[in-house]
Amino acid sequence: AIIVYRLPWTWKCSKLLMKFIHAGLNTIAMILAIVSMVAVFEFHNARNIPNMYSLHSWIGLTAVIFYSLQLFLGFAVFLLPFAPVPLRAALMPIHVYSGLTIFATVIATALMGITEKLIFSLKNPAYSASPPEATFVNCLGLLLVIFGALILWMASRPHWKRPPEENAKVLGPIGGTPEGTEAESTMADGSNADKSDLRISSEAARKQNLKLDEAGQRSTM
Amino acid sequence: AIIVYRLPWTWKCSKLLMKFIHAGLNTIAMILAIVSMVAVFEFHNARNIPNMYSLHSWIGLTAVIFYSLQLFLGFAVFLLPFAPVPLRAALMPIHVYSGLTIFATVIATALMGITEKLIFSLKNPAYSASPPEATFVNCLGLLLVIFGALILWMASRPHWKRPPEENAKVLGPIGGTPEGTEAESTMADGSNADKSDLRISSEAARKQNLKLDEAGQRSTM
Repeated sequence: AIIVYRLPWTWKCSKLLMKFIHAGLNTIAMILAIVSMVAVFEFHNARNIPNMYSLHSWIGLTAVIFYSLQLFLGFAVFLLPFAPVPLRAALMPIHVYSGLTIFATVIATALMGITEKLIFSLKNPAYSASPPEATFVNCLGLLLVIFGALILWMASRPHWKRPPEENAKVLGPIGGTPEGTEAESTMADGSNADKSDLRISSEAARKQNLKLDEAGQRSTM
Repeated sequence: AIIVYRLPWTWKCSKLLMKFIHAGLNTIAMILAIVSMVAVFEFHNARNIPNMYSLHSWIGLTAVIFYSLQLFLGFAVFLLPFAPVPLRAALMPIHVYSGLTIFATVIATALMGITEKLIFSLKNPAYSASPPEATFVNCLGLLLVIFGALILWMASRPHWKRPPEENAKVLGPIGGTPEGTEAESTMADGSNADKSDLRISSEAARKQNLKLDEAGQRSTM
């Protein structure tokens, strides 16, 4: 979800479609987070293990609360068409920063969870005897760190940002003129791809799409 | 060490002094890291606890190795006057990214270490019974996350970057003209502060200082 805006193939999509992918993937992640939290509490209750005593649980719950706030504010400010453009522009750096910070915090929480689980579950032989399971799960933890570092790299490279499009072009007619600039033809491609991908047949939906897109276009500078 | 370049009071220092503070603090941190690693291995050996079995130790050692690489490359490329300017410019984004990533990884390692320590040390009452020590150390862990988030915020704000200085001014004579621009007088202040702080009395050392400063000036764009 974080790197949707950093993948060159999505640059051909309309901005609104990218936002939908970003919001959709994050919504799926939020649902999975809630399901897993319910599972944890039910598991604890079934086994008479106290809830919310560990640092893992404290930081994890904090991250989920901030994540739901992030998701709610993201929907309200960047997806719905009501927020004024200066507000979007002012909140965008905070949205990006808090998204990446929550992501890093979630990885740290996962690493703490892995540590706890290995200590509690490996008894004979113990974790400290380095049984194959311990080595295997340690490798998974290392891969998690590498994954996090890669995502942060992709998200923080300025030249991996979606190339800016001019507002005037976005407001122009779909299809563009054949003698258009690079930016224009990219936009035209994007709009066509958008149409064929989503199969938006109604003209009204397309107009709504463009209107939203225009508002969003100016929000990220 | 990370936020040296983000503190307005250091903008008055010469660039070289800022680099010395940055490199010096990181060197102190590296020495402390080595001392603490030796302490851990000696503690483990004295108590017959195996070394390097946990995810905490794997990720922690990886972070320390990358940190020493970062420090070595930082000295060789950015502090010593031999590296050509294009190399400095090309490596600077990588240096910044890897520094921040190592910082985040070290915080994650500390959180895993805290989790391990609480599980191993709290036995009667256990960690899961939430004795006051557990709550206290959990709060420390949360503060560590907040600290990390604050540092990443400060380090990633573009408008908290040191204001750029023009190269032409840097090459000019120290002291500047009284009718100089804002940038000029800042540079003059910086050079004076630099001199009085470091007590560089020899003219040769000062010239070397300026030469280094000039090369470094253009390396971060």
